[in-house]
Amino acid sequence: MSAAKKIRESIARASWIRKMFEEGDKRRARYGAENVFDFSLGNPDLEPPERFKQVIGELLGDPGAHLHGYMPNAGFVETRQAVADFLNKSNRARFTPDEIVMTVGAGGGLNVVLKTILNPGEEVIIPKPYFVEYNNYLDNHQGVPRVVDTKGDFSLDFDTIAGAITEKTRAILIDSPNNPTGKVYSGEELKGLADLLSHYSGKFGQPIYLVSDEPYRKIVYNGITVPSVFDAYDESFLVTSFSKDLSLPGERIGYAAVHPNISDRDEIIGGMVLCNRILGYVNAPALMQRAIPYLLDEVIDVSVYQRRRDMLCDGLSSFGYDLTRPEGAFYLFPKTPGEDDVAFVSELQEENILTVPGSGFGGPGHFRIAYCVSDQMIERALPGFDRVMSRYR
Amino acid sequence: MSAAKKIRESIARASWIRKMFEEGDKRRARYGAENVFDFSLGNPDLEPPERFKQVIGELLGDPGAHLHGYMPNAGFVETRQAVADFLNKSNRARFTPDEIVMTVGAGGGLNVVLKTILNPGEEVIIPKPYFVEYNNYLDNHQGVPRVVDTKGDFSLDFDTIAGAITEKTRAILIDSPNNPTGKVYSGEELKGLADLLSHYSGKFGQPIYLVSDEPYRKIVYNGITVPSVFDAYDESFLVTSFSKDLSLPGERIGYAAVHPNISDRDEIIGGMVLCNRILGYVNAPALMQRAIPYLLDEVIDVSVYQRRRDMLCDGLSSFGYDLTRPEGAFYLFPKTPGEDDVAFVSELQEENILTVPGSGFGGPGHFRIAYCVSDQMIERALPGFDRVMSRYR
Repeated sequence: MSAAKKIRESIARASWIRKMFEEGDKRRARYGAENVFDFSLGNPDLEPPERFKQVIGELLGDPGAHLHGYMPNAGFVETRQAVADFLNKSNRARFTPDEIVMTVGAGGGLNVVLKTILNPGEEVIIPKPYFVEYNNYLDNHQGVPRVVDTKGDFSLDFDTIAGAITEKTRAILIDSPNNPTGKVYSGEELKGLADLLSHYSGKFGQPIYLVSDEPYRKIVYNGITVPSVFDAYDESFLVTSFSKDLSLPGERIGYAAVHPNISDRDEIIGGMVLCNRILGYVNAPALMQRAIPYLLDEVIDVSVYQRRRDMLCDGLSSFGYDLTRPEGAFYLFPKTPGEDDVAFVSELQEENILTVPGSGFGGPGHFRIAYCVSDQMIERALPGFDRVMSRYR
Repeated sequence: MSAAKKIRESIARASWIRKMFEEGDKRRARYGAENVFDFSLGNPDLEPPERFKQVIGELLGDPGAHLHGYMPNAGFVETRQAVADFLNKSNRARFTPDEIVMTVGAGGGLNVVLKTILNPGEEVIIPKPYFVEYNNYLDNHQGVPRVVDTKGDFSLDFDTIAGAITEKTRAILIDSPNNPTGKVYSGEELKGLADLLSHYSGKFGQPIYLVSDEPYRKIVYNGITVPSVFDAYDESFLVTSFSKDLSLPGERIGYAAVHPNISDRDEIIGGMVLCNRILGYVNAPALMQRAIPYLLDEVIDVSVYQRRRDMLCDGLSSFGYDLTRPEGAFYLFPKTPGEDDVAFVSELQEENILTVPGSGFGGPGHFRIAYCVSDQMIERALPGFDRVMSRYR
């Protein structure tokens, strides 16, 4: 009875996922790490682009570079200028460094935005399935999630969204390309969403924000691009990180950007800078901030993930799995043959295949495969996926 | 009316400090940066130790090093083992990697500890003056500060502490060496505090924690050492960072350690790891974590700060300033000659000397000088300190 009540409850809720990880460790010890197929975590196996190491080396070799000290809580102005220039290449809106706050990854950026806008008890609409941490991030700021259904192909369902909007609705939080489905929202979907939010913003007399979490923006397949929320809607925030496109998840470097035309722009920006400080982040890590201006056009080799997606989707489809082929990110979210996704994931575990039940993402009856693993692991795991499905055929 | 109510209020409260910084920028533009003496920020001017750059270079040159990926939310086990070994050299308690959580600086560590232990409305006792962010950090987790007076030399006043303890008291938060006073709490003080907390923990049937914020532990003068809270009291947390002793404040690398004998040890540790994740930090920056095992015995040249302390204290004392000579950190907290510290700081500003009113630290009638600036800046500012004081003599 020493930790806070809510934290004790969270530990208890989380424990079956932790038990699964512990089970994975046990299996690795018993069967050898090479015989356990771990698709449970979104931890990229690719190394960062070669240019990353070059840039860090050059920075450390520059005796005049101010690399490790404090800077404004929003981040180095040169870094924010580079991000603004980068956004200006693909958005109609014109960004300046003021609209950019460098953050401790996208997780840090989301918390900064949510703390800036949420009064206690206010609601945020989240289409499901969704990234598992969103509930926690809302709860940090006493926000309340309103989870809504999407369509069969995971596209936005405007009826369920409209049905969830009340005068307490402060924002909708989307993730594109989506974790866990790999869905990319189209320009038309964003336009439709913007129209809906504009209507209700007018009705309730205060903006309903669109918060877009886009750490997988550059990881898209078959030439798709991810449409900009800023082109669709002025009351928008973009939150992202370099964790996935530069394979740097442990370095905790990302940013939050706000539309230059957002209502009460200066107050919102002032709030974000304040929240970056008072949440204890203080600033995004300095050396990584210094490197980012040289890396904005870099990306790991996306074709590797596309190849893995196709290996998995082709294999699983041929075994009878019902799935929607991801347009981006490195997750696959097939239906489980029975309704009980936790039981199905346990069956896969008996084949030393580690995945995550869809229930954890608000998508029961599904399971998530993170395919940021070697081709070989996918190849060697496929027969196990086949054997488990064969019991349902 | 777009940002959350509390954030709008915080922006408004903070604005006069921001105005002071803007005033500084104006003065730098008008009089030249070299003629503005900025003692307002605790941003170390010293470069990191040479060994730091060597270590980073060696890590980046090692093709087999796993440098930038996710790791357990608590941090790399090798890093936590190194920190545990380091603590075991100077503490009676025996630490293992389990009792260490690597954090995004001390700011991140404090938020992790506070979220772990605080139920909404619970109270934390804070001796004043105190680091300005403590109120914000408590408020993040709906904790309530109970600020208590210290004695004239800033040592702990057990009567005021005892008077503030209620059944809602969850912890006392101390900072040694203290920001803004440079005070180091003695072993006897910590022992007395431990006795007091033990007494009330027993009375109310749950532990009252001692949370010790120690980023300046290695920056101490005249051979003083900072006594360990762990040697004094089992229900203790240590939070620290490498920001000051390695001059790396922008890199956001620190750790939180918990006494191995703390009540419900596993629950507390589980809570800290969970909170590190759900607060959006996820983990402390990876490359810096990899470097820390090689840098635990390193420290910048403390004699530089000691020389500056003496220059300032000798100079100000000779002008008639009433001050307590700091035992550590790089802050001086003299009394203002009049009661109105904001007015006095404005008078210093007219001399292009930028300091911070004590009111911001819960210490009205004082002002803070951060002397992590060049010797030359101190030398050139002294006549201005003299001129302002001469009006009160």
